[in-house]
Amino acid sequence: MKNYQKYTRNYFMPPESCIDWTRRDYVEKAPVWCSVDLRDGNQSLIVPMSLEEKLDFFNLLVKIGFKEIEIGFPAASETEYEFCRALIEQDLIPDDVTIQVLTQSRPHIIEKTFAALDGAKNAIVHLYNSTSVAQREQVFQKSKEEIIEIAVSGAKLLQEYSERVGDPYRFEYSPESFTGTEMEFALEICNAVLDVWRPAPDKKVIINLPVTVSLSMPHVYASQIEYMHKHLKYRDAVVLSQHPHNDRGCAIADTEMGMLAGAQRVEGTLFGNGERTGNVDIITLALNLYSQGVDPELNFENIPAITELYERVTRMPVYDRQPYSGALVFAAFSGSHQDAIAKGMKWREGHDCPHWTVPYLPIDPKDIGREYEGDVIRINSQSGKGGIGYLLEQRYGYRLPAKMREDFGYTVKSISDHQHKELTPSEVHHIFKDYYVNFFQPLDVTEVHFIQKNGIFVMVTAKIGDEVYEFTGTGNGRLDAVANALKNSLKLDFSLLTYEEHALERGTNSRAVAYVSISCGRDNKICWGSGVHDDIMAASVNALVSAINRAGLIQQRNA
Amino acid sequence: MKNYQKYTRNYFMPPESCIDWTRRDYVEKAPVWCSVDLRDGNQSLIVPMSLEEKLDFFNLLVKIGFKEIEIGFPAASETEYEFCRALIEQDLIPDDVTIQVLTQSRPHIIEKTFAALDGAKNAIVHLYNSTSVAQREQVFQKSKEEIIEIAVSGAKLLQEYSERVGDPYRFEYSPESFTGTEMEFALEICNAVLDVWRPAPDKKVIINLPVTVSLSMPHVYASQIEYMHKHLKYRDAVVLSQHPHNDRGCAIADTEMGMLAGAQRVEGTLFGNGERTGNVDIITLALNLYSQGVDPELNFENIPAITELYERVTRMPVYDRQPYSGALVFAAFSGSHQDAIAKGMKWREGHDCPHWTVPYLPIDPKDIGREYEGDVIRINSQSGKGGIGYLLEQRYGYRLPAKMREDFGYTVKSISDHQHKELTPSEVHHIFKDYYVNFFQPLDVTEVHFIQKNGIFVMVTAKIGDEVYEFTGTGNGRLDAVANALKNSLKLDFSLLTYEEHALERGTNSRAVAYVSISCGRDNKICWGSGVHDDIMAASVNALVSAINRAGLIQQRNA
Repeated sequence: MKNYQKYTRNYFMPPESCIDWTRRDYVEKAPVWCSVDLRDGNQSLIVPMSLEEKLDFFNLLVKIGFKEIEIGFPAASETEYEFCRALIEQDLIPDDVTIQVLTQSRPHIIEKTFAALDGAKNAIVHLYNSTSVAQREQVFQKSKEEIIEIAVSGAKLLQEYSERVGDPYRFEYSPESFTGTEMEFALEICNAVLDVWRPAPDKKVIINLPVTVSLSMPHVYASQIEYMHKHLKYRDAVVLSQHPHNDRGCAIADTEMGMLAGAQRVEGTLFGNGERTGNVDIITLALNLYSQGVDPELNFENIPAITELYERVTRMPVYDRQPYSGALVFAAFSGSHQDAIAKGMKWREGHDCPHWTVPYLPIDPKDIGREYEGDVIRINSQSGKGGIGYLLEQRYGYRLPAKMREDFGYTVKSISDHQHKELTPSEVHHIFKDYYVNFFQPLDVTEVHFIQKNGIFVMVTAKIGDEVYEFTGTGNGRLDAVANALKNSLKLDFSLLTYEEHALERGTNSRAVAYVSISCGRDNKICWGSGVHDDIMAASVNALVSAINRAGLIQQRNA
Repeated sequence: MKNYQKYTRNYFMPPESCIDWTRRDYVEKAPVWCSVDLRDGNQSLIVPMSLEEKLDFFNLLVKIGFKEIEIGFPAASETEYEFCRALIEQDLIPDDVTIQVLTQSRPHIIEKTFAALDGAKNAIVHLYNSTSVAQREQVFQKSKEEIIEIAVSGAKLLQEYSERVGDPYRFEYSPESFTGTEMEFALEICNAVLDVWRPAPDKKVIINLPVTVSLSMPHVYASQIEYMHKHLKYRDAVVLSQHPHNDRGCAIADTEMGMLAGAQRVEGTLFGNGERTGNVDIITLALNLYSQGVDPELNFENIPAITELYERVTRMPVYDRQPYSGALVFAAFSGSHQDAIAKGMKWREGHDCPHWTVPYLPIDPKDIGREYEGDVIRINSQSGKGGIGYLLEQRYGYRLPAKMREDFGYTVKSISDHQHKELTPSEVHHIFKDYYVNFFQPLDVTEVHFIQKNGIFVMVTAKIGDEVYEFTGTGNGRLDAVANALKNSLKLDFSLLTYEEHALERGTNSRAVAYVSISCGRDNKICWGSGVHDDIMAASVNALVSAINRAGLIQQRNA
């Protein structure tokens, strides 16, 4: 691509090496979570939420377990002001939940922000101003000192307004566009704000370091966080917070590495909704913790219900490949993956497994309200015997012999390939029933009498088309005797190869299923059939008849 | 969430600290790119691509500049075999492009793989077997030695088959499920394969270390890569490759950090299509490099065209928030963002900017075939004067006075809020024309005569409904004289506040646009109007008349 020299790296490394965070390899504890769905999330929607939709979303967030929820920028629009008033006046905020409101550092905006909060039991007032080189120069056209003055004067006003009503509020300060700011200046402005607020361990404030626009690799951000963590004043009285966006596709890594580097709090959204590429996805962060044995302190046990409400009120689809929540993220279409999953699930049944280790499934889909069938094993022309057999067993109770799985797998793949579409579990089941089970055309065995006497003697009544036949046979076993009767009387060229059966439990009455393979003709072509019946012997005869019909032996005999 | 103790960390740290990679803060050179869209991407589709669709996709990949393209697993299915044959027999592979095929380590599979390659000028034969603890134990039920034997015997077969046809092929080995493998064992098995192949700097092989399932944070993967990088045998004869999936939302970070740690090659897909959460998105990787001034060595100058073909052949949508390529990723709906972008763009016009630094836009959307209008500044109830004014100026040529931008901004936001929808640039333009420009009801000035004599004397012909009026007036300027004539004769209570005008260039003939604000009544309500006309004086009279009509002064006079 031409033009690449038009770009350079617009971020700033800390003035000292900050890589202590690399000593830790995972996040050991959930951060304080703050949802910004109703602010950053809402302002990025093509059609912002209505008041009613916001209330539905707010209740969902409370139910998931968020204790801090940024609800808007009440001084910026009437709608956001009214939403804030509705929450307070209708007493919709649980006692253990703190709402958070955003404000610029301008006196009339701050005044209106506090008016919006009137009567709130708890609230975080979130002050921000932009600090990056680009914004100072191009947007505000102000010196560093003037930018600090914006922050400090706003911090003072917050304190004044809060003291007037008995100081019930907590404060947060964000040097917006932190990632484009010189680290020494970011530290200076945060410390200047802290010097106004003079927080104490029993009255903490939040310093939030946003990835307003992502400009660097995540380990650079982690180093920046570590630098701030090490040098912020009043550190034991500061909750260090992050607010990453996803411009470089690294919001999750930014946040997780930032936590290793000293950050204690995360602002993000469900499904990563938010400006441009979105805010960091709190569902992914939480379930990443979960998947490594750490309590996420949020409840995502019913992702499908959360998805449904989210899609309704935001009018945004959840992406098919969004980690944990996307429609396809547990899906295995390919044969080898399906086979490994099926074997891994079987392994768990037969072993005492302290931890989840099933191949290709980072977590158990059931833990977040998803299903193996439909969500995991999905059938198309790339699928294999393992997955198709597993699906038929888990959902419909058929435990096909290994070789029959293979045979059935080819049948299913070929149908999917020709129809050029994915097959549902129910369609796979129908293919099995239509192609393999109780397949009585052209040969149908309508009656069998067994006589046990020096082996087995059978009398068989059969129909081919409208013609009725009666014949006899003998064998070592019952099925063997029936096979011999058919073979000899109808001059069929096959031999019985395998026979398996098991109870097929569906509902209250248990039926039997039988699987039979026969070897046919000079080239020993193998053909499978299955039979289902209340009676196990009838099921096995049905399976044999199905195999004969599927092999086309009757037609060949007529030809 | 209950159940979190069901999980633990299933990855393995290297036996020594490997953090040399943290000394580098960005990727300085593009890796060797290998597209796996037609293999890993295709096998994860609900409906896999047809032969024709694959050919279209292959040609797109070539056009983008991929020199290595994994085209399938030819021994696994007839479709993939035929696709491989079609590429070779129809001579569709450019001389500088190498196709790559995947194979398991089984003699009949390898045999069929080489049959598929017959006649290919260049090819990479990619051998894999699974090496993780979980797969060894649950799926293969084999010891470490037996797993090494699978790899080594396959490596030998590759060599034998290749030598038989004159050794035209390159080899790749992947310890599949690398991220769940003990590092010492991963090293042992790769070195065992290398000992079979004995590569040399002029005959390199590829060792690919996939994140088959992501199990750890990205810096752990980087340490693993660094460990392998430091300890692989024949290191100068090995191209160290990566193949990350996105289960934890960290595929981009994994890949970029892996490159700092010694990896030289990346396997990924366009838009991150691929199994489950997808493979790593090569578009994001490439444009992340680009955005920091590094030549990505792939051409993504027309993302909209790439998106169109991709969505057609894969039947997968590109996610709205996918970095760089998603529909919303450059969008700014909110007022403060729009304002900063507008100011940043203005700044570039007035300054010599060596590099791109516009706030909220990581890269210039035009560089990848996207538009400012429509893609960037988007208008809804969250929008502000800055963005709306910018859009009107960039697209339609109106440079509204700052205060008028504010007035118009409220009008537009309120319409979007009430209609509960986003407004297109054309709708915004129509609102401007309908509400502000040449607004001649009820007052219409049909004729004005100017006489210059001790100031300006005017004779005005006006209509209100069907009634025609003629009156005169004087003033210091022409517009002032017209305003005075209307004020005095019609008894209107206003004073002229501001007047601005400029040429409005659309097409060949340039017209003039004028903006007028008046202050009305006892409360000094300010009202804006605009006029457009071939003649600058007529435009300004039109603006004044529009302002009077918009203020409702004629109606108030009748009331």
